[in-house]
Amino acid sequence: MTEQRTPPRRGRGRRPAAEVRAEVLAATGHLLLREGLKAVTFDRVAREAGSSKVTLYKWWPSPGALAAEAYFAQSEPVLAFPDTGDIRADLISQLTAFVRWLTEEGAATPVSELVGAAQTDPDVARAWTEEYARPRRELARMRLRAAQQQGQLPEDADLDVIVDQLWGACYHRLLVLKVPFDQTLVPRLVDQALYGAARGA
Amino acid sequence: MTEQRTPPRRGRGRRPAAEVRAEVLAATGHLLLREGLKAVTFDRVAREAGSSKVTLYKWWPSPGALAAEAYFAQSEPVLAFPDTGDIRADLISQLTAFVRWLTEEGAATPVSELVGAAQTDPDVARAWTEEYARPRRELARMRLRAAQQQGQLPEDADLDVIVDQLWGACYHRLLVLKVPFDQTLVPRLVDQALYGAARGA
Repeated sequence: MTEQRTPPRRGRGRRPAAEVRAEVLAATGHLLLREGLKAVTFDRVAREAGSSKVTLYKWWPSPGALAAEAYFAQSEPVLAFPDTGDIRADLISQLTAFVRWLTEEGAATPVSELVGAAQTDPDVARAWTEEYARPRRELARMRLRAAQQQGQLPEDADLDVIVDQLWGACYHRLLVLKVPFDQTLVPRLVDQALYGAARGA
Repeated sequence: MTEQRTPPRRGRGRRPAAEVRAEVLAATGHLLLREGLKAVTFDRVAREAGSSKVTLYKWWPSPGALAAEAYFAQSEPVLAFPDTGDIRADLISQLTAFVRWLTEEGAATPVSELVGAAQTDPDVARAWTEEYARPRRELARMRLRAAQQQGQLPEDADLDVIVDQLWGACYHRLLVLKVPFDQTLVPRLVDQALYGAARGA
């Protein structure tokens, strides 16, 4: 936990904490997407971000917790929720971005590793659920609530079930079945969630 | 890998392989549900099942792979698919049994641990997907296909998406969101999957 190596940017003088934090999260996010969860150690992150290990230990209880928060920061711009007023179209855009992020932009492995670690490591579980999974569910709920207010979803629709049946369906293939899938799945997911598998029967 | 301890049932003489296999799977299943994945070691299973470790090493590549197969055997009677001719009612029965199995009968922890381990351990991943998750999906598909033939689901319904939106939704709460849920969730899951969240809007 001592600073044995001079951090590369030390010469620039003391940086504000928010700036250091953002740089640490960005460096961790890159490391995670490029090399996976096992590359995220405090040693390696301190080196890549030019920060001290003491700072990392002060801010995060474990490298896994840091990785979960970095994953949220890294994915946030990719996973924004559009609101064009058409809930079907907007869900298709957002879920297409999510599936491509997983399958084409390298997120499938770190996500699997983080959720995997969250099953037995309480620090990773806390960071993953509190810094990523539940805040993202809240963003999805907000978009679905707006659709409800515009009359595109009925008052008694269970919005959490919609979240489970869209994003949860993708996680099911990724983590439980471990079968390949791509963005062509998305319109079927959205249409069956919104209009029902039994429509027309 | 040597037999240092005399297995307790050795005195009964050589048992047929199928019988030994069934006893090993039953002993492992009980151990897994009672004490979790970390209790499943070849030492412990050999002791509980009265079999030799050599046998275990011969039949399973790792304790995790044995645990996954034991979980399938243990859960099979609980998770049978009824066919009363009413797909909505039958899905509600089966999913209620599945949710109670997870939340009241102790399966939530070993399932989480197995899926967690499957994200980084290739032997567990292979055993979990090949011995449990995909065979179970095939059983669900068979029941859904029968409903299709009876005209309760349209010809163009994507049966795999229904599987993702029912069982996958439960796994989403268990593994990704890590929020508590119970069997009262099931009718909403089934109704939104079959009839759509947007019906009536």
